Amino acid sequence: MSKFGKIIPVISGKGGVGKSTVAVNLAISIAKTGAKVGLIDGDFYGPSIPTLMGGGQVVPDHEERLIPPVKYGIKYISLGFFLKNPDDAVIWRGPMFNKALNQMFEDVSWGALDYLIIDMPPGTGDAQISLTQLVKLAGAVVVTTPQEVALADVRKSMNMLRKVQVPILGIVENMAGLPLPDGTVVPVFGSGGGEKTAREFGVPLLAQIPIDLAIREGGDTGAPAACGTGATAERFEALAKRVLKEVNETGSPDAGVAIVN
Amino acid sequence: MSKFGKIIPVISGKGGVGKSTVAVNLAISIAKTGAKVGLIDGDFYGPSIPTLMGGGQVVPDHEERLIPPVKYGIKYISLGFFLKNPDDAVIWRGPMFNKALNQMFEDVSWGALDYLIIDMPPGTGDAQISLTQLVKLAGAVVVTTPQEVALADVRKSMNMLRKVQVPILGIVENMAGLPLPDGTVVPVFGSGGGEKTAREFGVPLLAQIPIDLAIREGGDTGAPAACGTGATAERFEALAKRVLKEVNETGSPDAGVAIVN
Repeated sequence: MSKFGKIIPVISGKGGVGKSTVAVNLAISIAKTGAKVGLIDGDFYGPSIPTLMGGGQVVPDHEERLIPPVKYGIKYISLGFFLKNPDDAVIWRGPMFNKALNQMFEDVSWGALDYLIIDMPPGTGDAQISLTQLVKLAGAVVVTTPQEVALADVRKSMNMLRKVQVPILGIVENMAGLPLPDGTVVPVFGSGGGEKTAREFGVPLLAQIPIDLAIREGGDTGAPAACGTGATAERFEALAKRVLKEVNETGSPDAGVAIVN
Repeated sequence: MSKFGKIIPVISGKGGVGKSTVAVNLAISIAKTGAKVGLIDGDFYGPSIPTLMGGGQVVPDHEERLIPPVKYGIKYISLGFFLKNPDDAVIWRGPMFNKALNQMFEDVSWGALDYLIIDMPPGTGDAQISLTQLVKLAGAVVVTTPQEVALADVRKSMNMLRKVQVPILGIVENMAGLPLPDGTVVPVFGSGGGEKTAREFGVPLLAQIPIDLAIREGGDTGAPAACGTGATAERFEALAKRVLKEVNETGSPDAGVAIVN
């Protein structure tokens, strides 16, 4: 077992499905079980982790490695910490991305981790392939919303994962309806699409997470819903337990070993 | 004026904000004004236009160029039409993307267009820069949802556009609340963020489009909301008129001229 522990990328075909939100809340909920958890913001095009986690600062140690901030029980790192103006567009070309991603593993003082969650950029491009070439991944958590245009992209992502032999731990169906106070549920993005796709691909449906304004507000204010109590925090706790079960039962056993320097 | 007319990319910092949906409904609504309109699905990672437009077929002409399908008054092309299995992941490296994007301009029998809308992939990477190097853009329509994590990415995108000197026609705030039958509005993704960002950047707020289940259902079934009647179709018509006003008043005058072969 490497120092990174089991590396679990959180991916989506389509952007805007709440991938970063799931990654943050999953990481925090895994840490609540007592495990040592790291979180890498691999979405270099639009690093959301600083906003979602309420900031954070990286300091160099005496060996010129970077000490990541610790908050809500997790260590985390984001390219966002290194931008002078967070609103500047960083225009990433393929090789730069590889180098920067490698630094997030090698130049950061992670200590010994049990699990390292990676919030990946959406899509199936250089970034996704680079990650699979850099380290051995234990298994991926796939996030989608229920509507067909999102599912189409998710099927592409899952086919890519299979092509590069990354185990799929399962699907999280996010924004699965908006419950109203009167008990009805508005299917803002449709319903049941994640469940159907999980069945088609023969992978577990890890969780269905309804829209909860507290999730978005917690994200905008840097206090993730998983830190609180109530139904949504419990849903993320249940997701964390399910992910740990899947990764330890079906995940890649030699996960975390660097395969490219 | 080139044969492409004025080229208008629809961009977003973040995925999943409804960029493709806005692009399709904008293109259809501009065509309703009597203009000749083309639509390129530039989101090669997750081409949604075939789903949103309800399919379509490309046929070669006698000069071995491609005749695009015509529907709802617009000509449109998507990489999705060329994939044997639409669920396959196409893993695009930078140079392949450039070549394929160039073919969408040069190898397609567009005829003479007044406006060419391009549904761009989200983010600020190779794809966005390639487009600005390939043709002169009249001006960009920027799509966002109201919450802070989306706005952070939008600010990046707008800074990139300014860096490469593409005029910004304005911002569309999409998913701006869910109106309930009782008249209340649920701020699913917050409210007012698009307006605030437009003010900060000194660009017009082109439209605020509330969540309407008919938009998502129309997208999933290939019958875009702009083809129908009612409040949402009218909102897209108003958006189209506003975009045309902006592009003809403030857009780049020599738009559409190819600058790289």
